[in-house]
Amino acid sequence: MTVRQKVQHILNSITPIQVLALGFATVILIGTFILMLPISSSTNTETDFTTALFTATSATCVTGLVVVDTGTYWSRFGQTVIMILIQIGGLGFMSFATLLFMVMGKKITFKERLVMQEAMNALTLQGIVRLIRYALISTFVIEGIGAALLSFKFIPKFGFWEGLFRGIFHAVSAYNNAGFDVFGNFKSLVQYTESFSVNFVIMTLIVFGGLGFTVQYDIINKRHFKKFSLHSKVVIITTSILIVVGALIFYLLEHDNPETMKYLSFKGKVLSSLFAAITPRTAGFSTLDTANMTNASKFFTIILMFIGASPGSTGGGIKTSTFAVIVMTLFSVVKGREDTEVLSKRIPKDEVYRAFSVICIGIFIVIFDVLLLSVFEKADFLSIFYEVVSAFSTVGLTMGLTPHLDIVGRIVIILTMYAGRVGPLTVIYALMRRHANSNAAIKYPEDNVLIG
Amino acid sequence: MTVRQKVQHILNSITPIQVLALGFATVILIGTFILMLPISSSTNTETDFTTALFTATSATCVTGLVVVDTGTYWSRFGQTVIMILIQIGGLGFMSFATLLFMVMGKKITFKERLVMQEAMNALTLQGIVRLIRYALISTFVIEGIGAALLSFKFIPKFGFWEGLFRGIFHAVSAYNNAGFDVFGNFKSLVQYTESFSVNFVIMTLIVFGGLGFTVQYDIINKRHFKKFSLHSKVVIITTSILIVVGALIFYLLEHDNPETMKYLSFKGKVLSSLFAAITPRTAGFSTLDTANMTNASKFFTIILMFIGASPGSTGGGIKTSTFAVIVMTLFSVVKGREDTEVLSKRIPKDEVYRAFSVICIGIFIVIFDVLLLSVFEKADFLSIFYEVVSAFSTVGLTMGLTPHLDIVGRIVIILTMYAGRVGPLTVIYALMRRHANSNAAIKYPEDNVLIG
Ligand SMILES: [K+]
Ligand SMILES: [K+]
Repeated sequence: MTVRQKVQHILNSITPIQVLALGFATVILIGTFILMLPISSSTNTETDFTTALFTATSATCVTGLVVVDTGTYWSRFGQTVIMILIQIGGLGFMSFATLLFMVMGKKITFKERLVMQEAMNALTLQGIVRLIRYALISTFVIEGIGAALLSFKFIPKFGFWEGLFRGIFHAVSAYNNAGFDVFGNFKSLVQYTESFSVNFVIMTLIVFGGLGFTVQYDIINKRHFKKFSLHSKVVIITTSILIVVGALIFYLLEHDNPETMKYLSFKGKVLSSLFAAITPRTAGFSTLDTANMTNASKFFTIILMFIGASPGSTGGGIKTSTFAVIVMTLFSVVKGREDTEVLSKRIPKDEVYRAFSVICIGIFIVIFDVLLLSVFEKADFLSIFYEVVSAFSTVGLTMGLTPHLDIVGRIVIILTMYAGRVGPLTVIYALMRRHANSNAAIKYPEDNVLIG
Repeated sequence: MTVRQKVQHILNSITPIQVLALGFATVILIGTFILMLPISSSTNTETDFTTALFTATSATCVTGLVVVDTGTYWSRFGQTVIMILIQIGGLGFMSFATLLFMVMGKKITFKERLVMQEAMNALTLQGIVRLIRYALISTFVIEGIGAALLSFKFIPKFGFWEGLFRGIFHAVSAYNNAGFDVFGNFKSLVQYTESFSVNFVIMTLIVFGGLGFTVQYDIINKRHFKKFSLHSKVVIITTSILIVVGALIFYLLEHDNPETMKYLSFKGKVLSSLFAAITPRTAGFSTLDTANMTNASKFFTIILMFIGASPGSTGGGIKTSTFAVIVMTLFSVVKGREDTEVLSKRIPKDEVYRAFSVICIGIFIVIFDVLLLSVFEKADFLSIFYEVVSAFSTVGLTMGLTPHLDIVGRIVIILTMYAGRVGPLTVIYALMRRHANSNAAIKYPEDNVLIG
């Protein structure tokens, strides 16, 4: 083989999943390079590699963890770069590529469709292009409305251009569940705890972005809940339960905490309870001082963050539907039933195995990271635990550890954000030469081990 | 129905699992009553109910967490009661009942066999009585040897009767993975860190007790590893890996810690690394100052404790074989295979579901407890996390929180020890009127949700 043939051969053997993983990495590296330029920082000086890499990874993986304050460290140009990275990362770079294809009128090949399917985590190849086109349009429409509403609030306070930029930036950041803010001093939305309009717009953007495109599609096109796909029903029910029960628990845990809710009005208490329950799905904004919440609230936040948003959405985590399948499998086992049953449907075995694998790989990654950071960073255990889960689920909430991370900690968090966004299973598949059909091989006899 | 018929009816409808759960509760309550008597305490005063209940639960569930120091608070009589509770709890009260039946020459009914099968977590009804008889004999033989060896060490130091008692007590406590000690002041075995003989005897007792009777039976009767059941192979391989890798990691994390290993000889470092890796399976003795280990070691201990010992053994946790099935399922999913494969055998679907259910229920219990204790106890998060997992897996290691627990904390830990020992699935089954065969019901159509 000539060198050229070899290159061609390698290119042909790349799986869609590898394209996806490499695409994210490429976007991150380009972002890093641009953020390192003096023009990107507010002081017009060059930014060091790890700070730029951390920021670009956090933006592209729509995480929102930051080592430098977004509002004060970066210039308007740098903030715009971050916003674009968020948009690329949130939509998935492949739907972005589709946009380019559409604009250029290029025909989409079958292989490209496969890549898109991975990117969108969709169920069938049919209508994948239509779904992506829908995703693009709905994203810009919803973000546009959000930006307009936020600008109404921000323009009177910050002036026209500044208010408009803040409106657009936070609408993009909220809908893509990125959690970046430009209010300065790592304060996120704490100054808007009592503002109904800001809370309402941001929460709606977060929830809608976190449902995933397939669910949005059902909501807008099918209207009646009964007609929705099983997936949409499960996602909507699970999300609703997590929000309502979550808000209730945060209210109970925090209403008397002088560092957070105690001195708020009742409206403020309700809004911030709701916000605290919604932001782990996996936006990462905060309207309360997260570092001063009770330990119980912090731990509860960790659990909610780990569950995260829904598949095919801009959010991270193990996903609401995965959580639902696991809970329903527990019920089935306890009831002595053979299969997992959800809303009068059986979930296939391989999907249940995959659900448990996703949760277990997630737990393994979190455990591994927490051990590493416990060794290399001088910090409180709960801070580390919180930060790691926040990175894994691309949430961006923090108890304040990230800016103080050492080099090892930064690298660990960067890799975790990447694995969390691309999906742990995807990373593993991407690293393998082929995953395909090894079922054709020998089938071993069944045997038992004792469980529990 | 007359009242008598009703009672008869209820008795007949009790499942073996309910008998097991009720039996444990009865033993605990009798133990509590005896420990409350003045004769049980060293000061000859009455002990309050929750302290006695906590101690009796901890002993019967072979946990080892204590609210008062075993060596100084209780009289010799009280300590003997604790030792007997440990023995009953360790063997499982049913194998104890079998002992009584055998002694009394009573014929064993089919229903009683079923109860014993639950108690021993064994695979088939065949040979269950033989297995229990074997368990009883091997327990007393192994404990006898252990007690003799320990007495050699203790008699010269403490005098004949005191040394003999300590030998017997700690052999029983080690083989049953109870972790109670009578050395006083909550110090466990810290004074024997460098003693090869004490370490060797205690570690051997812990490991052998933690393998489970079916595995012991294979080792003693089949001799050749190849002839062992799949279950025994999996348990032995997993336990070995956990010990070797665990010891290595503890050595790396602690060898330079001035509060634990730094000033020990190399022999002491190796012994205490091994001990630290073995004690979470789920003995609960310690030869190092656990409260002053590094956070990484503490967290790693939590993970090992959660995994715990092997099924049908005196230890707790989700069990080594459960852990192995989960890890192998992950491999299968990643390799794209349809079934979980372990040592060239397929594991049936319902067993995989049960393995994941056990781990998930365990995680739910731990999360629930940690949240509760975070609200009701003033304590560091890691201490609470450590204590809860220690209770759930009936380990008994502590960072020092237990003696300071408030009433809510005590109740939570008591219930957790009980659920952990009887087994979370068992508790759930026991609470249900019947679990049996609901598979006869309608079979729903398959449908998909998106995972991860
Ligand atoms: K985020
Ligand atoms: K124990």
